[in-house]
Amino acid sequence: MIKLNYTELRHTPSLSPLQHKIHEIIFEADTFWGKVFDVVLLICIFLSVTVTACDSVESLHSEYGYYFNIAEWTFTILFTIEYFFRLYCVAKPWLYGISFFGIIDLMAILPSYLSLFIDGPELQFLSVIRILRFFRVFRLFKLVHFTNEVELMLDSLKRSIKRIAIFTFYVFIIVFCLGAVMYIIEGPENGFTSIPVSVYWAVVTLTTVGYGDISPKTPLGRTFSFFIMLLGYGIIAIPTGIVTSEMMLPKKTITTRTCSFCCREGHDPDAKFCKYCGKPLD
Amino acid sequence: MIKLNYTELRHTPSLSPLQHKIHEIIFEADTFWGKVFDVVLLICIFLSVTVTACDSVESLHSEYGYYFNIAEWTFTILFTIEYFFRLYCVAKPWLYGISFFGIIDLMAILPSYLSLFIDGPELQFLSVIRILRFFRVFRLFKLVHFTNEVELMLDSLKRSIKRIAIFTFYVFIIVFCLGAVMYIIEGPENGFTSIPVSVYWAVVTLTTVGYGDISPKTPLGRTFSFFIMLLGYGIIAIPTGIVTSEMMLPKKTITTRTCSFCCREGHDPDAKFCKYCGKPLD
Amino acid sequence: MIKLNYTELRHTPSLSPLQHKIHEIIFEADTFWGKVFDVVLLICIFLSVTVTACDSVESLHSEYGYYFNIAEWTFTILFTIEYFFRLYCVAKPWLYGISFFGIIDLMAILPSYLSLFIDGPELQFLSVIRILRFFRVFRLFKLVHFTNEVELMLDSLKRSIKRIAIFTFYVFIIVFCLGAVMYIIEGPENGFTSIPVSVYWAVVTLTTVGYGDISPKTPLGRTFSFFIMLLGYGIIAIPTGIVTSEMMLPKKTITTRTCSFCCREGHDPDAKFCKYCGKPLD
Amino acid sequence: MIKLNYTELRHTPSLSPLQHKIHEIIFEADTFWGKVFDVVLLICIFLSVTVTACDSVESLHSEYGYYFNIAEWTFTILFTIEYFFRLYCVAKPWLYGISFFGIIDLMAILPSYLSLFIDGPELQFLSVIRILRFFRVFRLFKLVHFTNEVELMLDSLKRSIKRIAIFTFYVFIIVFCLGAVMYIIEGPENGFTSIPVSVYWAVVTLTTVGYGDISPKTPLGRTFSFFIMLLGYGIIAIPTGIVTSEMMLPKKTITTRTCSFCCREGHDPDAKFCKYCGKPLD
Repeated sequence: MIKLNYTELRHTPSLSPLQHKIHEIIFEADTFWGKVFDVVLLICIFLSVTVTACDSVESLHSEYGYYFNIAEWTFTILFTIEYFFRLYCVAKPWLYGISFFGIIDLMAILPSYLSLFIDGPELQFLSVIRILRFFRVFRLFKLVHFTNEVELMLDSLKRSIKRIAIFTFYVFIIVFCLGAVMYIIEGPENGFTSIPVSVYWAVVTLTTVGYGDISPKTPLGRTFSFFIMLLGYGIIAIPTGIVTSEMMLPKKTITTRTCSFCCREGHDPDAKFCKYCGKPLD
Repeated sequence: MIKLNYTELRHTPSLSPLQHKIHEIIFEADTFWGKVFDVVLLICIFLSVTVTACDSVESLHSEYGYYFNIAEWTFTILFTIEYFFRLYCVAKPWLYGISFFGIIDLMAILPSYLSLFIDGPELQFLSVIRILRFFRVFRLFKLVHFTNEVELMLDSLKRSIKRIAIFTFYVFIIVFCLGAVMYIIEGPENGFTSIPVSVYWAVVTLTTVGYGDISPKTPLGRTFSFFIMLLGYGIIAIPTGIVTSEMMLPKKTITTRTCSFCCREGHDPDAKFCKYCGKPLD
Repeated sequence: MIKLNYTELRHTPSLSPLQHKIHEIIFEADTFWGKVFDVVLLICIFLSVTVTACDSVESLHSEYGYYFNIAEWTFTILFTIEYFFRLYCVAKPWLYGISFFGIIDLMAILPSYLSLFIDGPELQFLSVIRILRFFRVFRLFKLVHFTNEVELMLDSLKRSIKRIAIFTFYVFIIVFCLGAVMYIIEGPENGFTSIPVSVYWAVVTLTTVGYGDISPKTPLGRTFSFFIMLLGYGIIAIPTGIVTSEMMLPKKTITTRTCSFCCREGHDPDAKFCKYCGKPLD
Repeated sequence: MIKLNYTELRHTPSLSPLQHKIHEIIFEADTFWGKVFDVVLLICIFLSVTVTACDSVESLHSEYGYYFNIAEWTFTILFTIEYFFRLYCVAKPWLYGISFFGIIDLMAILPSYLSLFIDGPELQFLSVIRILRFFRVFRLFKLVHFTNEVELMLDSLKRSIKRIAIFTFYVFIIVFCLGAVMYIIEGPENGFTSIPVSVYWAVVTLTTVGYGDISPKTPLGRTFSFFIMLLGYGIIAIPTGIVTSEMMLPKKTITTRTCSFCCREGHDPDAKFCKYCGKPLD
C-alpha cells in the first residue's frame, strides 16, 4: 500500500521534460532539490499539525486564534499547490488520486475548504480531520534511509498478523465473557452499570491499563479480578512471543536470490547450490 | 476437549440418510449448505449476544426492552431447534449432550426457559448467563481455516502450562506475603483495611494494572512499593520468556538433516539437494 | 538455601530407629505416611493462613473472632508439636534450627506465644507475622513433582540475576533523576510535594503501574511524561529480553558430565570427547 | 561518551610523580587507595543525594533544614576539592573539563555556589539540580566488575537503537492521530479538553500506564479505547521482540568453527578439541 510504483508511472513516454523535472523533485529524494523539497515538506507538515493541536487549546485559541487561522490557510494553500503539482507530473493523475497517498493528500486540504461552507459543531470536527495530514509524514521515510529496517519490521508483523488476529479474536471473546460474569458479581451499584461497561472494565484490566474509574468493590469481585489479572499476565506474553519468534527468523531468510534453473526462491545466504534442483546458484 | 470426534459418531451405521444429510449441514463446513449454515449461525450468535449486552444498558432497556425480548425469544427458539437437530443427527445423542459443546449449547437456551418460572433478582442473573453462548463461536473455527495456526499456539501454551502453573503458584504466595507486609505498614487508616484487601492491592500492583483505588500513603509504604513494582517488572518477564522460548522451538527442531556427501547441516525442511555441494539429500 | 541436605543429617549413626521412622514421615515424601503427613500439613498451612487473613477483616473479626482465636491456637499447638518432632528426629537439632526452614518453622509459632505477653498495637503486628508461615508451603514442593521444572526456571533466573541487578541499579538512578526533574517541573502545588514523592511517581509511571494518585497537570509535565512512558516501554523490554534469552539456553547445556581426565565440565549432551583435552567422555 | 581514555591522558610525560600518584588514586580502582577513594566517593554521593531528597520534604526541612544545609555545604566543599584534584592530575585539564564526567562533576558543585548569589523561586530549582550529581555514580562502575555484562547489554541496545527509534517515531504519529480522533469523539466535556491533552491520554493508554485522571466516558469513546488498548498490547510486543532478538544473537554468532577432520560444527568458543572426533581444533 505504501510502496506506490512511482518509477513505473514516470517512465510513461507521455511525460514532458518539465513534468519529468517536477516529478524528480516532488517524488524522489535522490537529487539535491528533491531532498530540499522533502525537508521543507516535512517541516510544513510538522508545523501545520502543531498549529492545529495548539488551536484546540482553549487559552491559546482565544489569544492567538487569529494567527493560527492565517498559518492554517497558508499551509492549506501550500499543500493545495503541491497537490496539483503532484497530479500534474504523473502520467495518470486519476491513478494517483485514488492511491493511498493521493487520498491522504486530498484529506489534508479538503477540510479547510469545506469549513468555508459549513458552520456550527461540524466545524470543529473538520478542523481536527486536518490532523490526519500527519500521515503524510510516512511518505518521507524515503528521505531517511530506514527503508530496510522498516521492511524487516513490517515483514515480521505481516508474517505474524494472522496469529495476532486469532489471538485478538480469542481475547475479544474472553473479555466479553469475563465482563458479563463481572456484571453479575458486582452489579450496577458498584459502577458496573451494564455489560458493555463491564466489558470495557475487563479490557482495561486485562491489558493492565487499569484506569481505576471502575474497580471491583465486593470481595467476590476482587477475588475474581485476581484471576483476570493473572490471566492478563499470561496473555500479554503471547503477542510478545509471536512477534519475538518472528523477528528472530529474518536473519536467516533475507536473501531474494532466485535459482535461474527452477526459478524457486528462499535460498539461504550461504547457499551455493539450489536446494530444490541442485544446480549452482549465481 | 474442543475436538469432538464427530466423524466417528457419524459413521455409525445406524444413521439414516436424512440424519446423514443433516449431520453434514450442521456439523461440517465442507459442503455449500454446511458453510451457509455456519455463517448464519455465526451471525445469530453475534446478534443474540449483542441484544443481551444492549438489554443490560438501562437507557436502552427502558426504550427498546420490548423488542429486545422478542429478539431474545426468536434466537432462543432458533437455537432450541438447532439443538434438537444436533441431538437427532448424531448416533449417540447422550454422548453429544454431555460433550463440551453439548453443554454450551444447552446453556445457550436454558436460561430463557428458566426465566419463565423464576422471578426476582435471579432473573437478571439468568439473562446474563445467556452471554456464555458466545463460547459457541469457538465451534465455528473450522469455518475459517485457522486450525493450523491455532494448533501451533495451543501447542506452545500446552507445553508451557506446567511452568506457568508453577509460576502462578509462586506469584500467589509472594502476593500473599507482600499483601500481609503492606497491611502492617499502611494499616486500615490508609485504605488497606484487611489482609485480603492488601493482597488485592499487591496483585493490582504486581501485574502493573494499578487502579489507584488503593495506593500507599506513608513514606515507608511507598518505599516498599518501589521494590514490589521493580519485582513486578522482573516477574512479568518470566511468562513472556516461557511462552517465547516455547514458541520458537518448532522452527528449530525441524532441520537436523546432514548431507551424506559433505557432512554439512542446516538444510531447510523442504530442501531436496544439499545447498553446499549440490548432491541429493536423503 | 532451599535444599537442606537432609539425607546427610539422617544417615548419622546416632539416630535411633524411632528417630529414623519419624524422620522418614516428616522429612520425606516417598512412603505412604510421609505423603499423608505432607498433605495434612499443606491443608493446615492453608487453613491457618486463611484464618489469619479472615481475622483481619473487621466485620468477620467482630462476628467470628472467638472461633478464629480457637483455630489459631489449635494450629499453633499442632505446629509446635511438629516443630519439636522435627528437632527430635534430626541428628543435629541446632543445625536444623538455624537453617532456612528451621527459622521459618519457628516464626510460624513464635508470634502466637509472644502475643500472650504483649499487648497494644504490637499485638496486631504479631498476628500478621503469622502469615509468613505461608512460606512453609515451599517445603512441600517435593510432594508435587515439579522439581525439574522449578530447577530450570531458577537456573535461568540465577544466570540472569547479575544482569537484572545491573538493570535494576540503572533503573534506580534513572528513576531518581526523572523524579527530581519532575519535582522541578510540576512542584508541590500539583501533588509532587517532595523529591521522594516524585521518585515514587516516576517508579509508578516507568513500571506502567500508573495508580493516578499523583499525575502531571502542567503541559510541560505531561510532555515530559510522554518520554518517561515511552522510555518505560523500551525499558520493560530489557528484563524480558534477558530472561527469554537465558530461558532458551538450557535446552543446550543441561548436562553435568565431567571429563574424568581433566575434570572440566560444560560438555554438550552430544559430545563424545572432552573439548578441552580430547580424551573420550563417558 | 562514558569511556574517557584516561590512560592516554595520564601517560603524557608532562605529569609529575605527585600528579601520577593522585591520578592513580582518583581515576583508577586497581590500587588499595584507589579502591578506598572510590568507596568513600560512592558513600558521599549517596549521602548527598539523600540529603537533597530529604531536604525537599516539607516536614523534614522545617525541622532539620539547618543540619541539611551544613551537610550540603560539607559535600559541596568535598566535591570541589575533588574536582580541582581531578583537574590538577590530568595532563590536559580543559579536555577533562569539557568531557561528559567533567561537566557532571561541575554541575555537582555549581548549584550550591550559585545559590549564594540567587534568591527567590530559582533557588529551589538550583537545589534540585544537585540531584544530577547522582549521575556521577556511573563512573564508579569500574569498581564493581560489571563491565562485561554492561557492555553486552549496551551492545544489544546499540544495535537495536535504530529500529527502536523508528518504532518510537511510528508510535508518536499513531498516538497523535489516535489522540485527535479521541478529541473529536469525547470532546472537552469529558476531560479531553484539547488535542495535546488527548494525545497525552493516548500515550498513557497505549503504554498501559493508565492513570485514570482522564478516561473515556461515552460509549463510542470506550469502544474506541478497546482497540487502542488491544493495539497497545500488540505494540508493546515490538520493542520486546527487538531487544530479545538482539540479545540472543551474540550467543549464536560465536560458534562457527568447523572441525577440519570430521567437518562438524557447533563447537563452543572455548573448545580446543572437536567434541565429536577428539581431534585438535584450529
